[in-house]
Amino acid sequence: MIPSIEWTDDNKVKMIDQTLLPHELKFLIFEDYRDVAVSIKVMNIRGAPAIGVAAAMGMALATIEYKFLPIEKFLKSMDEAAHLIKSTRPTASNLFWAVDRMWKIIASTNEMPPVISELVVEEAKIMAQEDINVNKSIGKNGADLLEDGDTVLTHCNAGSLATVQYGTALAPIRTAIEQGKDIRVIADETRPRLQGAQLTAYECHYDKIPVKVISDTSSGLMMMLGKIDKVIVGTDRVTSDAVFNKIGTYLVALAAKDNKIPFYVAAPSSTLSLNETIGDVTIEQRDSREVSDVLGKVQIVPDGVECLNYAFDITPFRLLTGIITEHGVFTQEELIKKYKEY
Amino acid sequence: MIPSIEWTDDNKVKMIDQTLLPHELKFLIFEDYRDVAVSIKVMNIRGAPAIGVAAAMGMALATIEYKFLPIEKFLKSMDEAAHLIKSTRPTASNLFWAVDRMWKIIASTNEMPPVISELVVEEAKIMAQEDINVNKSIGKNGADLLEDGDTVLTHCNAGSLATVQYGTALAPIRTAIEQGKDIRVIADETRPRLQGAQLTAYECHYDKIPVKVISDTSSGLMMMLGKIDKVIVGTDRVTSDAVFNKIGTYLVALAAKDNKIPFYVAAPSSTLSLNETIGDVTIEQRDSREVSDVLGKVQIVPDGVECLNYAFDITPFRLLTGIITEHGVFTQEELIKKYKEY
Repeated sequence: MIPSIEWTDDNKVKMIDQTLLPHELKFLIFEDYRDVAVSIKVMNIRGAPAIGVAAAMGMALATIEYKFLPIEKFLKSMDEAAHLIKSTRPTASNLFWAVDRMWKIIASTNEMPPVISELVVEEAKIMAQEDINVNKSIGKNGADLLEDGDTVLTHCNAGSLATVQYGTALAPIRTAIEQGKDIRVIADETRPRLQGAQLTAYECHYDKIPVKVISDTSSGLMMMLGKIDKVIVGTDRVTSDAVFNKIGTYLVALAAKDNKIPFYVAAPSSTLSLNETIGDVTIEQRDSREVSDVLGKVQIVPDGVECLNYAFDITPFRLLTGIITEHGVFTQEELIKKYKEY
Repeated sequence: MIPSIEWTDDNKVKMIDQTLLPHELKFLIFEDYRDVAVSIKVMNIRGAPAIGVAAAMGMALATIEYKFLPIEKFLKSMDEAAHLIKSTRPTASNLFWAVDRMWKIIASTNEMPPVISELVVEEAKIMAQEDINVNKSIGKNGADLLEDGDTVLTHCNAGSLATVQYGTALAPIRTAIEQGKDIRVIADETRPRLQGAQLTAYECHYDKIPVKVISDTSSGLMMMLGKIDKVIVGTDRVTSDAVFNKIGTYLVALAAKDNKIPFYVAAPSSTLSLNETIGDVTIEQRDSREVSDVLGKVQIVPDGVECLNYAFDITPFRLLTGIITEHGVFTQEELIKKYKEY
């Protein structure tokens, strides 16, 4: 398993160029935070946890660049860097959270820039390690739900490539396999961006986890034919009444319910937003060309016909078997009891 | 609306080359039955009703070619033509049915070949007209279910392009619009072959029926957001307990049920097979490259990863609101009472 992003010993940022997957595994190495910002924007790196760490590491690179400036100029330059990094994916909340966490280090010390830089670099490394630790805990908690011989369907990519390493939805599968269980994966292709076909299939195949790909239209029949034992998906946000995840998740959950197949959501506690309900969330609509032109390469819709492209859908709690966090496996009531802040 | 296939006044077969849609509207004109056979094989024409008519017209062309042969040589040559036409799509039952219907004309007369040829040509034209008549009746029966202002979701292409003209699932929409109702269509793209994005979108747009395309992953959210009022799909076969149709239909039906949206199946009585049950039908598995390589043009799955490609799925009757045939709209019980042969 390859980390999607890491801080190198010689103080550079190394990441997989995910735009070339699944056809080519190439690494990008950056020493300029501006290049990290571009890499977030053009989606060399994607997935909420991975983007957060990339933003933090971008801030760390900026502190190295500016560390010999006088403190006032250092702060002004860092403010510019923070703005640039935040502007790359304006709807990615992890990005803001990560940049702000780095800024708190800068703002809360009386040290001079060279020392601040060391502190920020250290914090970025800690963030990356925290992500791995959370994912491994999700893996351990989720692995107990999987039995030897299970075939697990997942939708989109909530794997190593969406995090620093290990993944969220794929973590229980990795852990179960490490425990010696025979686990197989079915990946929904996940139109329109095809993260299942391209990324989940790639990382499973790379790590020798048995994987097969199906069209998004096939999950229902596969369940009806008895070819799927469990479903695990990731999430972007969990409100008190529903799970927001990649478009198509709701259909998979309906099919799982109709076929009495357990449906789990792997949710780091950072994705929990239990003071919100369905009505509080606006579903992002993306460029319709993601639908009309597959990967920008084949036009499948006639000229003049409009496409609609909602990025996420809403899976009500009644369709879920459980939520797997780094602290355990929870029903809706248990989750709210443990995590909701009043 | 363009007929997908027709018999011309100068005794040729004219069809749309559907492999070029939605980018180019080109007609193929054949006077040799061998060319018609090739056109069925390479899917210049597709859709069960349209294929049946193409096969009948191929047989009619063969009778013209051989009509000056002595009767014995005529019969031998026609037998060869029948075998060639039947071999083009070995699982298409309409093909066999149509060729056999032509053969019955040939076998049941004492006329000489020039007269037989006239009879066969006439029968092929009748078959084409019968298809249009059935579709228009489905349109009339189904239009009563649609209200002014409805947005109707359909899956795959059960339109004019899958029949001689008018379509099955699209027939009620066409008729309702002819009646002056404001009806809009949402087309599921229908992976892996993308008949919704390519063909349904094309024919609706061509005929000025308002249409938008969504990914197969989006239908559930669209229903939850209140953007779809009715669903109408076609079918390949209706057994006493379920509807067999293009892969993905079952997921759409689940979402419709969960959102209390009426779900109808347009089924010419020729598709009813009510002495069968789910267990009697084998689901065709097609070349996995339809999944891994979009339209043979973009590889989306890494080398070495297997894809599964079931062509049809199973929608149990409990998810349906009604079946629309050329004779009316029926529940499961009503359908069995009217059509089942004991």
